[in-house]
Amino acid sequence: MKKAIVLLSGGLDSATTLYVALDRGYKCYCLIFDYGQRHKKEVLKAEEIARLADCDYETIKLSLPWRGSSLLDENMEIPSERDASEMAKGIPSTYVPARNTIFISLAAGWSEAIGADSIFIGANAVDYSGYPDCRGEYFEEFNRLLKTGTRSGSQGKAIKIEAPLIDKEKSEIIRMGNKLAVPYELTWSCYEGGEKPCARCDSCVLRKKGFDEAGLEDPLTGKSHEPEFEGANK
Amino acid sequence: MKKAIVLLSGGLDSATTLYVALDRGYKCYCLIFDYGQRHKKEVLKAEEIARLADCDYETIKLSLPWRGSSLLDENMEIPSERDASEMAKGIPSTYVPARNTIFISLAAGWSEAIGADSIFIGANAVDYSGYPDCRGEYFEEFNRLLKTGTRSGSQGKAIKIEAPLIDKEKSEIIRMGNKLAVPYELTWSCYEGGEKPCARCDSCVLRKKGFDEAGLEDPLTGKSHEPEFEGANK
Repeated sequence: MKKAIVLLSGGLDSATTLYVALDRGYKCYCLIFDYGQRHKKEVLKAEEIARLADCDYETIKLSLPWRGSSLLDENMEIPSERDASEMAKGIPSTYVPARNTIFISLAAGWSEAIGADSIFIGANAVDYSGYPDCRGEYFEEFNRLLKTGTRSGSQGKAIKIEAPLIDKEKSEIIRMGNKLAVPYELTWSCYEGGEKPCARCDSCVLRKKGFDEAGLEDPLTGKSHEPEFEGANK
Repeated sequence: MKKAIVLLSGGLDSATTLYVALDRGYKCYCLIFDYGQRHKKEVLKAEEIARLADCDYETIKLSLPWRGSSLLDENMEIPSERDASEMAKGIPSTYVPARNTIFISLAAGWSEAIGADSIFIGANAVDYSGYPDCRGEYFEEFNRLLKTGTRSGSQGKAIKIEAPLIDKEKSEIIRMGNKLAVPYELTWSCYEGGEKPCARCDSCVLRKKGFDEAGLEDPLTGKSHEPEFEGANK
């Protein structure tokens, strides 16, 4: 049975990606990171999702001694109440320096150690066009690096990064995940560290917009959850 | 003052690389990894070297839940009593899956967070020709990835990986480091976890050969340290 490492954040996109990989017949090993994110809750959610899907998982604790991102630094403000067009401008403060590069490189280490042939990541270039490490071009480049710089690559069995959601709208992702029975009630998207989703950060706004456009109820918040600010549902 | 992250393992090559970066006028930030290596002693040595050079340093503890290398797995044997030509054949069991990719990606994160423009690494393609992540081609590929996949790259200020020892013989490295007053007595090369260098692992063999060819005394072991097996000094 072919093996894949799946980067699982606990969010909606990565959970869907896990179910896509399972649907493609992979035995999945979930890699979860506790890297000092404000929304640490997503780590517990990711672990629950992995267990529910009956997958092996590993949670790596990364004590990054630096900040440089509003997701890591409680003194920085997380952008809020922006619509998708505002989000598309520039790189937001929620960008975490080299995050996907760090996560994929650790996934590559695990892949080589267990002989997995793919790394699945829920990156999306539609909603997160501001993040340089969420674009197709970046993953192509990384695939070349894995070919050049690993033992498996030298042996002609390079690990390949798969980003099955890269060019999908959030509503498409949700419809697809719904068919695959992704447990969206367990997924956590909000960037803030609160008990309930804030409904204001970019991630909450995109999630709500996605469910609304898909015509589906978000099992986490319930459909009755109205936009709380102007522009939330543009 | 321009800033650089220096990957410091505590070995001879990385210590020399730190002094090269300092000599080139960089303010250096040393990044040290405690990743479960058998020769954990090198971590303490790296920290001593950083302090002596009056550099900021960070030691990241990486609890990798996988093995896949004789440097990580005490049940695997570390190759010993091989001469340089034997070492050049294939990828040794001391290869750690994706290690340099993991280390450089974390260095890239720190670089972006503090605005450093370079990452220095003591990789060498002469002695470690078997390691795919120690070749010039790999670093060129990684530089392209850093251009494509980071905020600094998007802003036209991509971090650049510098591998100043990449094509040098060990004896050249030692002569160069000697001129720069690298404290070789503090460096640790041996792969085994012992109190004293084993004199048999690839790393000990290459170190001894380097000092001998440079015509210099290794302050760690003393010149009188004779090769203990046939072929040690070929």
